[in-house]
Amino acid sequence: MKINGRAGKQCVSQRIRIPAMVLALLCLAAAPSMAQLAPLSSDTEACISCHRMATPGIVGEWEKSQHAKMTPAKSLQLSKMERRMSATDVAENLRNYAVGCAECHTMNTKFHPEDSFDHNGFTIHTVVSPSDCNTCHPTETDEYSDNKMSQAYACLMDNETYAVMVDNTNGLDEFNGSGFHHIKADETSNADSCLACHGTIVKVTGTQTRDTVMGPMEFPTLSNWPNAGVGRINPDNTKGSCSSCHPRHQFSIEMARKPYTCAQCHKGPDVPAYKVYSVSVHGNIQKSMDKDWDYSAVPWVVGKDFTAPTCAACHSSEIVDESGNVIAKRTHRFNDRLPWRIFGLPYAHPQPIDADTSNIINKAGLGLPTELSGEMVSEFLISPAEMAKRQQTMENVCSACHTQQWIDGHFTRLQRSIETSNFMTLQATKILSTAWEEGLAQGANPFDEPLEIKWIEQWLFYGNSVRFATAMGGADYGVFADGRWVQTRNLREMADYLKFLRATKKAQDKK
Amino acid sequence: MKINGRAGKQCVSQRIRIPAMVLALLCLAAAPSMAQLAPLSSDTEACISCHRMATPGIVGEWEKSQHAKMTPAKSLQLSKMERRMSATDVAENLRNYAVGCAECHTMNTKFHPEDSFDHNGFTIHTVVSPSDCNTCHPTETDEYSDNKMSQAYACLMDNETYAVMVDNTNGLDEFNGSGFHHIKADETSNADSCLACHGTIVKVTGTQTRDTVMGPMEFPTLSNWPNAGVGRINPDNTKGSCSSCHPRHQFSIEMARKPYTCAQCHKGPDVPAYKVYSVSVHGNIQKSMDKDWDYSAVPWVVGKDFTAPTCAACHSSEIVDESGNVIAKRTHRFNDRLPWRIFGLPYAHPQPIDADTSNIINKAGLGLPTELSGEMVSEFLISPAEMAKRQQTMENVCSACHTQQWIDGHFTRLQRSIETSNFMTLQATKILSTAWEEGLAQGANPFDEPLEIKWIEQWLFYGNSVRFATAMGGADYGVFADGRWVQTRNLREMADYLKFLRATKKAQDKK
Amino acid sequence: MKINGRAGKQCVSQRIRIPAMVLALLCLAAAPSMAQLAPLSSDTEACISCHRMATPGIVGEWEKSQHAKMTPAKSLQLSKMERRMSATDVAENLRNYAVGCAECHTMNTKFHPEDSFDHNGFTIHTVVSPSDCNTCHPTETDEYSDNKMSQAYACLMDNETYAVMVDNTNGLDEFNGSGFHHIKADETSNADSCLACHGTIVKVTGTQTRDTVMGPMEFPTLSNWPNAGVGRINPDNTKGSCSSCHPRHQFSIEMARKPYTCAQCHKGPDVPAYKVYSVSVHGNIQKSMDKDWDYSAVPWVVGKDFTAPTCAACHSSEIVDESGNVIAKRTHRFNDRLPWRIFGLPYAHPQPIDADTSNIINKAGLGLPTELSGEMVSEFLISPAEMAKRQQTMENVCSACHTQQWIDGHFTRLQRSIETSNFMTLQATKILSTAWEEGLAQGANPFDEPLEIKWIEQWLFYGNSVRFATAMGGADYGVFADGRWVQTRNLREMADYLKFLRATKKAQDKK
Repeated sequence: MKINGRAGKQCVSQRIRIPAMVLALLCLAAAPSMAQLAPLSSDTEACISCHRMATPGIVGEWEKSQHAKMTPAKSLQLSKMERRMSATDVAENLRNYAVGCAECHTMNTKFHPEDSFDHNGFTIHTVVSPSDCNTCHPTETDEYSDNKMSQAYACLMDNETYAVMVDNTNGLDEFNGSGFHHIKADETSNADSCLACHGTIVKVTGTQTRDTVMGPMEFPTLSNWPNAGVGRINPDNTKGSCSSCHPRHQFSIEMARKPYTCAQCHKGPDVPAYKVYSVSVHGNIQKSMDKDWDYSAVPWVVGKDFTAPTCAACHSSEIVDESGNVIAKRTHRFNDRLPWRIFGLPYAHPQPIDADTSNIINKAGLGLPTELSGEMVSEFLISPAEMAKRQQTMENVCSACHTQQWIDGHFTRLQRSIETSNFMTLQATKILSTAWEEGLAQGANPFDEPLEIKWIEQWLFYGNSVRFATAMGGADYGVFADGRWVQTRNLREMADYLKFLRATKKAQDKK
Repeated sequence: MKINGRAGKQCVSQRIRIPAMVLALLCLAAAPSMAQLAPLSSDTEACISCHRMATPGIVGEWEKSQHAKMTPAKSLQLSKMERRMSATDVAENLRNYAVGCAECHTMNTKFHPEDSFDHNGFTIHTVVSPSDCNTCHPTETDEYSDNKMSQAYACLMDNETYAVMVDNTNGLDEFNGSGFHHIKADETSNADSCLACHGTIVKVTGTQTRDTVMGPMEFPTLSNWPNAGVGRINPDNTKGSCSSCHPRHQFSIEMARKPYTCAQCHKGPDVPAYKVYSVSVHGNIQKSMDKDWDYSAVPWVVGKDFTAPTCAACHSSEIVDESGNVIAKRTHRFNDRLPWRIFGLPYAHPQPIDADTSNIINKAGLGLPTELSGEMVSEFLISPAEMAKRQQTMENVCSACHTQQWIDGHFTRLQRSIETSNFMTLQATKILSTAWEEGLAQGANPFDEPLEIKWIEQWLFYGNSVRFATAMGGADYGVFADGRWVQTRNLREMADYLKFLRATKKAQDKK
Repeated sequence: MKINGRAGKQCVSQRIRIPAMVLALLCLAAAPSMAQLAPLSSDTEACISCHRMATPGIVGEWEKSQHAKMTPAKSLQLSKMERRMSATDVAENLRNYAVGCAECHTMNTKFHPEDSFDHNGFTIHTVVSPSDCNTCHPTETDEYSDNKMSQAYACLMDNETYAVMVDNTNGLDEFNGSGFHHIKADETSNADSCLACHGTIVKVTGTQTRDTVMGPMEFPTLSNWPNAGVGRINPDNTKGSCSSCHPRHQFSIEMARKPYTCAQCHKGPDVPAYKVYSVSVHGNIQKSMDKDWDYSAVPWVVGKDFTAPTCAACHSSEIVDESGNVIAKRTHRFNDRLPWRIFGLPYAHPQPIDADTSNIINKAGLGLPTELSGEMVSEFLISPAEMAKRQQTMENVCSACHTQQWIDGHFTRLQRSIETSNFMTLQATKILSTAWEEGLAQGANPFDEPLEIKWIEQWLFYGNSVRFATAMGGADYGVFADGRWVQTRNLREMADYLKFLRATKKAQDKK
């Protein structure tokens, strides 16, 4: 039998199945004081009595959380603006207890027909999903379900165009002396790459018996686990993982408001948001001065609790002034404040209408919101009126610190940055099209040849970098670091690559 | 009428123009307590009474500042070493009030003939410039005017050689089937790219009426606004923006002493100072231990207030020991402690004599402080004696923690690093010159062809990275990350590129 | 005479040699209060009396250290788990004093026959080595001597294969019109590059007289100084520098537990551990929440003192639960918890048996732990049984917060990531081998031609990045930023490069 091997454990029961309640009593002596915690339900007490030993890290972390210190009843006594829960009431049995293990992992069994299982006398489910969080946070869950992020699995994997790109990235290439034999990407590699952020499909595929510190126990087997991607498909068929941005088990608003959370997925060359932020004045103020900020305050008072925006401040948080006037309403549909999607596909374009973008298709039959010519595929994209509305919502955030002239100047630059980077993408597309037309590259799979890869990087890395640098005021990133400099360099290298391909072909044709 | 759209505003007067004083009274009730602030002038009180609502973020931020808590009079009571202002006195009407909105935005109107305007009964100017800060901080303003950074606009844009490089980076390239048609960089793109750090030309170009939370108001139109570049050309014709490093409206010495401020412009591959610092022992100590430092102390005691240098400690700050002995005098002329300019153009060279380097020209007619052969253009550069003096000033800083042998070892390495990286730049130059001579590239514009771009990166990215890594003790950055490894790789790729160009030309000549 | 040039020094004695004790008395008046410090030995008092003035930064820093606040005797009164020293007793003359200057720099002279010298009446040595730290920390010193890091000099420089790579990186290349004349890397450049992390050879090469704030003094000349590389060869012939991770003179466990310390050497594209960590959930929690952590607690309680692992938590620290059960024992042999060495050479492989890997050689005569075909050179590598044991030790750390299914899922991915990245390295090797066979590149030096450099980057940058991203849960880094995307791109570019070399050769052969 494989055991966990920890030295010094005093109340481990191995091999012998002991009822949970008895275990609880056995372990209770070892439990440190739980002062300052809200009252725990007896079920949660039972969970903790063993898990304090089995997984001490998460029990300790949870004890630092608001969930451990508040009860729904106490939360409901707060003014609406100060409240962190959007439900106006919760069931009687939840009201006066901390939100503990049992409250999230054993309630709502009706929503978890597939993944509920017996665990020491409790019916529990491992994967807490939006249907669980919905109990206390229905507004957030609703909004998030209409956020592209919750649909991130389908947006990527159910779009044929992007699915090819995923396969090209995660699959294998076997060299055969001159070219390659492609081996399709396996599920494990996808889960470890794109889907780590986009979300995997987690479902119960069977059961297994595992040795635990409490002896052997039976558990459901979960596919593609672990995962905390933003668009995770959960065993209960809901989409999304609230713990993507509110990581287990502290679920802290402080963490979600800090830029390091967003940086988990938005730091790479494709979406260099964090890198841009870190060279912006906003990012400098945040990094330099935030030891004096209150990231946990609800509502969040600009100028008092924080003096420069983080990602959350601009895109999600409720922001008020000292008198309680609301400058921006909280939203978990992050494009509420975004007219443009500066993430080019391949051109920057108005935000898509639907959160699920997998049905978008252009005239050429590609799953793109723009034509290769740069034209917008308007039927899938929000209208100019809607864009103006969202722009205004964002400008309200800016106006907490900036004059209208400042704001106008900023957005004039963003407009120009979109135009110029789209223009430079168009030139790259012209070069690639020329190669396709001349038979120097094969457009059937537009993602696998060096010239195609350079084309992709033109928009995915450099176009995006230029636009993010402008949008978030981190200009330095938009010059040399994957910015305008590289955008020009890559374009010119593409033209030379075309010459190289032409020369090679001519030499080959001569033979 | 477009309004700002904030919900819940209680004292907004729309459409109807109400005199500022009346507005002030109307709004005063909403103002939170201003305890702990120094006495405010009645003008500043009037500003705040409305701006607490109009721009609550900056009012709140300002209230956290020393400017809000101190008066010049109180500052003058401190010992000279503890004082943050260098003026020995200020005008009667400033002496006993906090340094508030009115003190900076309404005084000195005589210096602002172009950009002063009437705003609710006050004559104000938007862009606070060194001529304003000079009132209390004349030494800093003087020193800064002799710092290359204050001249950063001219240094870049008035130097014909660099101006071409700027245009190549920010302009557009239209593909025409084989080559490119270049479209000149527009002012907006320049402001959003190079000039974001170097500074734009801000001047009044007209007036405009804007809707505000207080109703429609008339404002001057500012060109290239916003900008906080170090060499901004202000409407009053002064150069520089103190808020580049002391961001509005907290103007905190703490922020200027933290490396994140410098990182706003000094993190990219051209000047990777922050990246190098972050892998140095100094950077590690700073990041790991600075929660126990006092970044606000004046004077700044080494070993007590901080235990490893930040950018400011080595290049700008006044540093003393616990007994008050001055180890380094404060300077806002940052090359006071720098013998070499390790930022290669294209070779590392002694610091230029003048802060404005736009007149530098080499024998070949290029605006460079070195010849392409590596020779120095000595007439524009400081003498060996001056270099030795600056070296000694820097060594004094090192000696606060290091022995002379340690220091000598360090600078021996820097000397060698300058030699070797200059040598590797020279080899790249030889390859490019060969291409120019053989007609494989066109030197007329030395910045736009792939081989030329690789040459530029040889010194601008890799040579600089190697030297910064040595100079700031972040050796790891100088190996693989844009360092010696890439310096070698790029050079060898250039040689292969030359072969490719030769082969292509031969094939073309045959036709 | 060159003097240090500090203004305001009051007790500097120049040119005139004054006995240390007299100097001490002279300087004592200037010494700030030393409350809260443990009793100082009279020797340390003498050191400090002058060095508070000569090097105030390090004296101040040391005063913040545990060494200054504790005595060995007080430490020995703590429970074994709370103790930071592993010696069960120390010499009488050390027991009741702070661990000060004299305790580390003047004791153990018998171990320092080469580098001891007379300094104001004391026999001291500059370079404190593991033989000194061993006095109080013998377990740590022992473990570390069996850690690859302590052998990092030999591992790199005494392995002929890697030595060529070092020389290629740090040496110079002189362009001769078509190819290059290579100039061997000099000692100074090596010390400033690879050996900054790996460690230099520091030995006494003579003596020199230097001017100090105390007047001229004689010191031994140290080669390759300064250096704090992990495998430094010290003048006393010991290997390693404890201050690599416990930087002078605070020697803080807090710093060693923070990831910024490891980042000094593990942030570049070859070992992007810190970059991966910074986009992992662990790294996010650490950066977002660690203001509430206690990094100095001994023992370190998971869930209480910290809520997500840092580098140290997984690889080195003693971790306990709140009841004092040990989850992981402290180790300074960092591969105790590592079955695989994911740092590919060129393929990921089981950890080497010996810390000194300089004797490893494969069938082809290369100093690599794998064949170019991907086969393991098993005789130098740990057995599957040993791998399983180390895996279990690491899993114990994971199990503090994660279930076994979570852990299994994680390690399944790591296994697959090793397989796929090794596969992609193999394909790159096939391309390079083809080039070697066809005479298009010269394998004699496998590190200096562009195609070879691309091959090296395939495993050193991209293979490593993919594996580190998986191993440390920072998936985003493993996609676009030097990850799978670039792994594929580089492979395909290598195939095109092969075509280019073939075409160039054919053209040349025709002539």
